[in-house]
Amino acid sequence: MRIVVLAGGIGGARFLRGLKAALGMGADTTENDSTITVIGNTGDDITLFGLRVCPDLDTVMYTLGGGANEAQGWGRADETFVVKEELAAYGMQPTWFGLGDRDFATHIVRAQMMAAGYPLSAVTSALCDRWKPGVRLLPMTDDRVETHVLIEDDQGRRAIHFQEWWVRHRAALPAEQIIGAGAADATPAPGVLEAIDEADVVLLPPSNPVVSIGSILNVPGIREAVARKTVVGVSPIIGGAPVRGHADACLTAIGVETSAEAVAEHYGPELLDGWLVDEADEGTRVKGIEVRSRPLYMSDPEATAALARAALDLALELKEREPSGEPGAGTEARS
Amino acid sequence: MRIVVLAGGIGGARFLRGLKAALGMGADTTENDSTITVIGNTGDDITLFGLRVCPDLDTVMYTLGGGANEAQGWGRADETFVVKEELAAYGMQPTWFGLGDRDFATHIVRAQMMAAGYPLSAVTSALCDRWKPGVRLLPMTDDRVETHVLIEDDQGRRAIHFQEWWVRHRAALPAEQIIGAGAADATPAPGVLEAIDEADVVLLPPSNPVVSIGSILNVPGIREAVARKTVVGVSPIIGGAPVRGHADACLTAIGVETSAEAVAEHYGPELLDGWLVDEADEGTRVKGIEVRSRPLYMSDPEATAALARAALDLALELKEREPSGEPGAGTEARS
Repeated sequence: MRIVVLAGGIGGARFLRGLKAALGMGADTTENDSTITVIGNTGDDITLFGLRVCPDLDTVMYTLGGGANEAQGWGRADETFVVKEELAAYGMQPTWFGLGDRDFATHIVRAQMMAAGYPLSAVTSALCDRWKPGVRLLPMTDDRVETHVLIEDDQGRRAIHFQEWWVRHRAALPAEQIIGAGAADATPAPGVLEAIDEADVVLLPPSNPVVSIGSILNVPGIREAVARKTVVGVSPIIGGAPVRGHADACLTAIGVETSAEAVAEHYGPELLDGWLVDEADEGTRVKGIEVRSRPLYMSDPEATAALARAALDLALELKEREPSGEPGAGTEARS
Repeated sequence: MRIVVLAGGIGGARFLRGLKAALGMGADTTENDSTITVIGNTGDDITLFGLRVCPDLDTVMYTLGGGANEAQGWGRADETFVVKEELAAYGMQPTWFGLGDRDFATHIVRAQMMAAGYPLSAVTSALCDRWKPGVRLLPMTDDRVETHVLIEDDQGRRAIHFQEWWVRHRAALPAEQIIGAGAADATPAPGVLEAIDEADVVLLPPSNPVVSIGSILNVPGIREAVARKTVVGVSPIIGGAPVRGHADACLTAIGVETSAEAVAEHYGPELLDGWLVDEADEGTRVKGIEVRSRPLYMSDPEATAALARAALDLALELKEREPSGEPGAGTEARS
């Protein structure tokens, strides 16, 4: 079975770990009858201190490779912050982004490879040679796409990098607009469209629907390719609040209510075939989308694996139902 | 009084600290009637992991700025090696060069400034804004000059970077030739020739006469400018052996005997006016050069300050003796 997962950072990485567990792909298992291709969000990427930092790709890589800081969700386990302190002592900006020493090494390798002319997809593959995440991890694009956020503060109305808004301001500055700088001109990375085309099902983990999944879908060609498949998503909203992070601030910026129902409607039945909501949101109905309720909190490995299994089972069930195996044709019949 | 010092790494840095002490320039004193301009060797510089590393400039900066690893002589105090371990885990080469985490931050700052177009002299000045070494530290050139060493091993006859020869092979592979790649086309960094021209005296610390002082003198224009001044050097050789490092291997490569006398003759009376040798080498005579013997081991701050004071005093004495203040004119009279 070939599964494609569009993933942001922590939520995507944990869902993927659950999916691997559900498929019997242990931490050390890299081969299985099933293959998982992860299309990772690169809209959060930022150049810091001359180094290209890819937070979402790295969170997936570290988490599946056993190197993540589990308590924090992002960054490396057993991390130290000597380089960061030293850069601050030199007066270097920014000081608000928490790059640890182990993490710095990843960015140094990436920067060196990119300076030598390798595209991000090749760099990611090389980094994964070490981490062996047990999935094929592809950046959504090799082109430079950056999510910027239009805000207004005492310095006026201006677009700042997503990370500055998210990390420095904790998404507390109202976002007037979320801009995918470079997205319109981007091309999917090599292998992305092929992986989607060849997939049996596509799963959307409970990643941020705007700046993670939305960013991936905005790369020209990806949304259309995904829409041709049987797609099941997991709601990142439980009982009207994001499970973690500030997805509510992102949804508000694009005029979408912070609810499991509204997020499914935002994805829309053209894209989404099935939608898992938490038991707290039982009774949610979305026209054209099969909604099921399950416990969605990824509170431990077992709960996470059960959630991933439920998403996959729903996808397979919906795929079965497709008269021709072409899910697009069946959308109306299911509504 | 204006003093110019040509410096390599550890020996130069320690001599400079002694000189500052001898002049009453404490660790926190950055102003004084005397000014010291240090022209630092950049021939040892190497690009590692995409970052430009300047070992000699940094050793001077860290040592005078109070950040050096005193026991080791180079690198930072309280250093950790997390980034280095991680790079090795990624399979990155080389693994034989000991870059610590604190040190890495310096190279990250430098790389970022150089990528933004700043010359090395401006970068060095910016780094010194933090370290406040109490001297004006100038790289010998902003151009890329690298010392390479011609060796022959089981991979054949080839030139390797000086650091590979020095650090990886501990200078144990016989050097057929020492090559200053880029030196012939290099230009002294801004301020270098002016500082020499305006200097009252020029001092040569017990740095490596081939790959440190020699590398500086090989930048076109520097040797000639220095030769016009009253110049006193401190022998890096005591009793036929280098005080530290592998200066003997470098001297052998250029056909110079490892002795205080031979090194003075190698510099020559056109360049050198006075020469301090250790008491173990008392009786050394070099035609055209005033030789004095002193304890040369920089074993503690007092001994180091006394040595620097002796070098400075000899230079001032020789300068006094010059009939016209033009040392070149007096060379023969003293021989």
